Amino acid sequence: MNRPDGRQIDQLRPISFVPNVAPHATGSVLVSFGDTRVICSATVEDDVPRWMRAQRVEGGWLTAEYSMLPYSTLDRKPRDISRGKIDGRSSEIQRLIGRALRAAIDLKKIGQRTVWIDCDVLQADGGTRTASITGGCVAAAIAFNKLMAEGKLKTFPMKQLVAAVSAGVYEGVPVLDLNYLEDKAASVDFNVVMTEASEFVEVQGSGEEAVFTSEQMTAMLELSKKGIADLISLQKAAILTADRAAPADLASLTAAFGKR
Amino acid sequence: MNRPDGRQIDQLRPISFVPNVAPHATGSVLVSFGDTRVICSATVEDDVPRWMRAQRVEGGWLTAEYSMLPYSTLDRKPRDISRGKIDGRSSEIQRLIGRALRAAIDLKKIGQRTVWIDCDVLQADGGTRTASITGGCVAAAIAFNKLMAEGKLKTFPMKQLVAAVSAGVYEGVPVLDLNYLEDKAASVDFNVVMTEASEFVEVQGSGEEAVFTSEQMTAMLELSKKGIADLISLQKAAILTADRAAPADLASLTAAFGKR
Amino acid sequence: MNRPDGRQIDQLRPISFVPNVAPHATGSVLVSFGDTRVICSATVEDDVPRWMRAQRVEGGWLTAEYSMLPYSTLDRKPRDISRGKIDGRSSEIQRLIGRALRAAIDLKKIGQRTVWIDCDVLQADGGTRTASITGGCVAAAIAFNKLMAEGKLKTFPMKQLVAAVSAGVYEGVPVLDLNYLEDKAASVDFNVVMTEASEFVEVQGSGEEAVFTSEQMTAMLELSKKGIADLISLQKAAILTADRAAPADLASLTAAFGKR
Amino acid sequence: MNRPDGRQIDQLRPISFVPNVAPHATGSVLVSFGDTRVICSATVEDDVPRWMRAQRVEGGWLTAEYSMLPYSTLDRKPRDISRGKIDGRSSEIQRLIGRALRAAIDLKKIGQRTVWIDCDVLQADGGTRTASITGGCVAAAIAFNKLMAEGKLKTFPMKQLVAAVSAGVYEGVPVLDLNYLEDKAASVDFNVVMTEASEFVEVQGSGEEAVFTSEQMTAMLELSKKGIADLISLQKAAILTADRAAPADLASLTAAFGKR
Amino acid sequence: MNRPDGRQIDQLRPISFVPNVAPHATGSVLVSFGDTRVICSATVEDDVPRWMRAQRVEGGWLTAEYSMLPYSTLDRKPRDISRGKIDGRSSEIQRLIGRALRAAIDLKKIGQRTVWIDCDVLQADGGTRTASITGGCVAAAIAFNKLMAEGKLKTFPMKQLVAAVSAGVYEGVPVLDLNYLEDKAASVDFNVVMTEASEFVEVQGSGEEAVFTSEQMTAMLELSKKGIADLISLQKAAILTADRAAPADLASLTAAFGKR
Amino acid sequence: MNRPDGRQIDQLRPISFVPNVAPHATGSVLVSFGDTRVICSATVEDDVPRWMRAQRVEGGWLTAEYSMLPYSTLDRKPRDISRGKIDGRSSEIQRLIGRALRAAIDLKKIGQRTVWIDCDVLQADGGTRTASITGGCVAAAIAFNKLMAEGKLKTFPMKQLVAAVSAGVYEGVPVLDLNYLEDKAASVDFNVVMTEASEFVEVQGSGEEAVFTSEQMTAMLELSKKGIADLISLQKAAILTADRAAPADLASLTAAFGKR
Repeated sequence: MNRPDGRQIDQLRPISFVPNVAPHATGSVLVSFGDTRVICSATVEDDVPRWMRAQRVEGGWLTAEYSMLPYSTLDRKPRDISRGKIDGRSSEIQRLIGRALRAAIDLKKIGQRTVWIDCDVLQADGGTRTASITGGCVAAAIAFNKLMAEGKLKTFPMKQLVAAVSAGVYEGVPVLDLNYLEDKAASVDFNVVMTEASEFVEVQGSGEEAVFTSEQMTAMLELSKKGIADLISLQKAAILTADRAAPADLASLTAAFGKR
Repeated sequence: MNRPDGRQIDQLRPISFVPNVAPHATGSVLVSFGDTRVICSATVEDDVPRWMRAQRVEGGWLTAEYSMLPYSTLDRKPRDISRGKIDGRSSEIQRLIGRALRAAIDLKKIGQRTVWIDCDVLQADGGTRTASITGGCVAAAIAFNKLMAEGKLKTFPMKQLVAAVSAGVYEGVPVLDLNYLEDKAASVDFNVVMTEASEFVEVQGSGEEAVFTSEQMTAMLELSKKGIADLISLQKAAILTADRAAPADLASLTAAFGKR
Repeated sequence: MNRPDGRQIDQLRPISFVPNVAPHATGSVLVSFGDTRVICSATVEDDVPRWMRAQRVEGGWLTAEYSMLPYSTLDRKPRDISRGKIDGRSSEIQRLIGRALRAAIDLKKIGQRTVWIDCDVLQADGGTRTASITGGCVAAAIAFNKLMAEGKLKTFPMKQLVAAVSAGVYEGVPVLDLNYLEDKAASVDFNVVMTEASEFVEVQGSGEEAVFTSEQMTAMLELSKKGIADLISLQKAAILTADRAAPADLASLTAAFGKR
Repeated sequence: MNRPDGRQIDQLRPISFVPNVAPHATGSVLVSFGDTRVICSATVEDDVPRWMRAQRVEGGWLTAEYSMLPYSTLDRKPRDISRGKIDGRSSEIQRLIGRALRAAIDLKKIGQRTVWIDCDVLQADGGTRTASITGGCVAAAIAFNKLMAEGKLKTFPMKQLVAAVSAGVYEGVPVLDLNYLEDKAASVDFNVVMTEASEFVEVQGSGEEAVFTSEQMTAMLELSKKGIADLISLQKAAILTADRAAPADLASLTAAFGKR
Repeated sequence: MNRPDGRQIDQLRPISFVPNVAPHATGSVLVSFGDTRVICSATVEDDVPRWMRAQRVEGGWLTAEYSMLPYSTLDRKPRDISRGKIDGRSSEIQRLIGRALRAAIDLKKIGQRTVWIDCDVLQADGGTRTASITGGCVAAAIAFNKLMAEGKLKTFPMKQLVAAVSAGVYEGVPVLDLNYLEDKAASVDFNVVMTEASEFVEVQGSGEEAVFTSEQMTAMLELSKKGIADLISLQKAAILTADRAAPADLASLTAAFGKR
Repeated sequence: MNRPDGRQIDQLRPISFVPNVAPHATGSVLVSFGDTRVICSATVEDDVPRWMRAQRVEGGWLTAEYSMLPYSTLDRKPRDISRGKIDGRSSEIQRLIGRALRAAIDLKKIGQRTVWIDCDVLQADGGTRTASITGGCVAAAIAFNKLMAEGKLKTFPMKQLVAAVSAGVYEGVPVLDLNYLEDKAASVDFNVVMTEASEFVEVQGSGEEAVFTSEQMTAMLELSKKGIADLISLQKAAILTADRAAPADLASLTAAFGKR
């Protein structure tokens, strides 16, 4: 079996993080998993949802929104607002992103605040939900670093990094981080979210209207574990860079988007 | 550790299926997992969705809708139409039910038809999504048997039965089929869909905003496998009864609902 | 003239009430008028609508919601949320149910509470609105008895029972309580709501896009008066049973739904 | 008992019809029942609803829409579109208007056409639904006369005129055609639609969350019968005037609206 | 070049204002620009929008809503609520009306109040937005005069009158106040809002998907300036009449609408 | 008067175009006017809107959608879908973008196709609508060049380039291309769309709820004319680069977004 882009079965696509692409957000990053690119931002508001105030829950909240920009897909995807309702798939993904990131954060430590994680897919080539979780975690970390620097937070509220990756069975072989071509042909689809301590946060496996075996599941979970360890190293590097060199980063950002 | 209702860790709640509760549907069943009760119906329409006609896909389609009746929960749950949009959780569950049942059915064999699986929760006490899948499969089988008897189908289109069950970690111990009390206190939540051949259809595990280990996952998958085998025996009995004794069942149904 | 099901012109269909079918509601009943079956529940919340607080109106409120489950009709009825708006007919019926039950209740006596009457049609065979009012009244009475038993209400807030029935002109003859076959063929359609003191609460008569005479109206009102007296006897029996024998009823309920 | 405006108990308010107020409609009229003023128009389109084409029903259709302009009430009434959904009361009224006018018209005679009856309340002072039916019938008749004159219809499709009026019990006395002050204080509210042959089309009586007796109902139906006979005479005069003297009427219309 | 209705290039259509057509509004007027007729009302509520209270902005607010009645156009225009969303063009126009009138009014002087300007088009023959602004200003002035008379306002809050008119290039020639026939054929479309001091409030010129020159723009602005001066004289007369002779006007209004 | 960022009164902010940022679109560009950044894409579909088919209009159509990403503003802007309706301001802007670009294109030459122009604001610092028009024109030109290269179009359908810029009166002085700080303080706001032949396409000037003079308007139109000539030179360079050097550009794009 040869993967369409020549990767090893346990090899991620080229991963990159461009921090601070949306300067009005508290933290932001453009994450790429190969040709899948997602703008992830974390915006911190000094307020909590109404249900939290009503129930007098201590601490803050984190909520996620996920959307595919209309030009992110091969055929143009109409905006949710044109259809009058949010897409079922988007709704499911943004609930997953929210749960995954809340598992990484000690919400009591962020005070009476809401963290909005916005994930807008610029280009979709498979694995947009795993890229969103992985990038969303980086955006949140950058945002918390900013609030720490501004003295608004005393302790860093993220307990650990989380990252996510997909695995699937392509031409009978379990492989890591499927691109769109592989995903379309795959017979099983797994999405795994793990922490830097290799603990599970979420596992979602679907036979895609077919079935799979215990052995396949085990193989895919192993691949995911390896992939997530790789991703977490890259997340750390990105957060450190963004944190230590903000002015430089602003310059390189301008170079990145506004090259002349 | 003692479970609130005294069950063994691998013991299902009392399970029952009352067939034909909605006589205008092609097939229907009231499924109970303990105090969780869901009305499941399968209605077959002689038409396929627009996208299927447009793409000239052969065969038919199955789609599911899930809703909690307003009085099914401890606090009244406002109807979706009052809020103007479908609940994110409901949307996610009905997508899961649809995928699970499509995995069980050879859609090419149902002809140019749509099978609507409607799951309305009458009483919610944990595990409504797994009861919906398990009951939805019975409703579909009853409907297909009816179409066979009417000569509208030549071969039975269901490849195998599917059932679903939840598992979780309650007071540190993996247990099967959590009720609401257990679910609220549980630190991990798994929902597993399997076939009668013990193959996986879907696995969804969430740390519920916390984390879990490989060992816990293995234990929960084992419990689920056992529970699903039990459920599939009960499904078979219910389908056989409903099939062989339709007139008698109508009488007992009247007795059941309309006792005097 | 022979009625399709052989009834006398002033004869109701078999009527039954199965109490407590939705245990999470304060009160509930599955009402049957022949093959028309409606789940009616009464849920009492410790709050009043915003307009009531704003206008500082004393006492509480009662509001009704009516919906046909998708499998209640011969052809599957799409859910309101799929169409994005509430059905005009449903909206009209739920306003009628609310007015009828508010006429029966002294809202000042229920305190700062809202009574939600939910009526979900499980099977539609004509007369769903009259079954809903009749069953809704029973559900409300059971709920008030429960609040009395819990010491939350001092005096029983229902001034009198109300019930509703339809009448129509079938093959030229005024008849009581039309089923679907009769209703489709009928040339006039009356829905009457009365109290146990035989006073009118609502009268709605429609020529169904044709006309009717004073004599026909008089005959239909007479039939309705007789039918409602019969219904009110049955309501009383159901309320007494539910009230006196709650544990026994829970057993028979399990038998009813969960027969094996 | 003295009525607030000094009328006899069986006396209508001053009634007027100004035809052709909306020249782009096929027929239109500004109807006044005292200070209640409604713009009624009938627009005929050369098409039928989709369900009619699908079911190959012969003839055409009539449908009604009713709306209160925001400045028609003492407190400004927000537009339906601001609230995102049609008002339940408006929905109920427009269904009533449609049924009432369809009873007056032989839909087979209008060909494959849809008649839209639009009723927009300019000023609300009680009885807007009865004014809408009464004015809507005049607008439809003017529209049909226009289509006859243009040779688009061979026979006049209206079988008979219909009109509507309210009655109620005000300070214990049944009275005709209640204005807002009376309506607010009334203990019973009847709306009656009848034909010129004094046959009933619709009767809707409500105790307004209280009860009423047979005797009160009989008295209100008698008052309504008398009032509708009066209204039908006025409708006939308005239709004749509009029909015979269209150019003159356009001039007087300009005078009416555009007086200087 | 001859204009279809024989007007000079700088000549307005016949303009009229019928005050007090909607007596429940604080101020109202039926404005006609030829066959374009718009009901304009100003309703003053003793409250301000939520954002204003939140930001503790001093004074009040004015907001406008614009709608075309379904029978105002040659082909019936479906209501916004039937389509489920406000028309883009209507949304744009009502924002323009609001900005234009807020420029005319010292919002600090109206106190904690909201002025609702409602513009409902009864008949559309070109220039409905300019008629709405011109009539809306008259309705607001009448409303303020009423509040002054009632002692609710100390000083008249309108700084100056504003009026609006359209200009366009018809058959190559710049002309004033286009009717529907001219508008459809015109190659450029200008809408200009000015004060009585001949200062600009808004200028919106569109090549209607083509282009225009500086010279054409200059000509159209000159025509507009002249037209607006004429309109403002007529507005003043209408406001004075409505103010001084309210009772007489109520009589003439009754005559106007209810003539016979 | 000194501008906050030290520019001359007739000086644009730094302008840049990064082509092909959304590779799944037919053409795309990230346009920057200083810190205002908008992702503009042009997607060509082989279909025309329903109304066009119904009216058998020759050629194709162009339509625009405009949206602010939630993190583009200083305070997070909720998505339209969360509010359930499109923002009035967004609706107005996307109508303007559509009209402006249709003026630049010979729709008959694009065949039975629809061009979707999507403008998503990544960062808002004043002038988002003018950046959208200017960038949208570049995206469309790139898309047309691609269709030409693929042989799908015979002749280039763009008649001329269009660009847009704002002008306003800041501290009493007319200035070009206002950023957010200037815009907030400005007393007049002009948006001008012109072609490369210096013909007007749209002029929208608003006193922002105040007034302005002829002289101010003349000055702002002059500034706009100068600014648009500058923008059109930059557009041409961007289109040429994107056209001639697509592979190279893909490399530099990767560098731009994916720098490491």
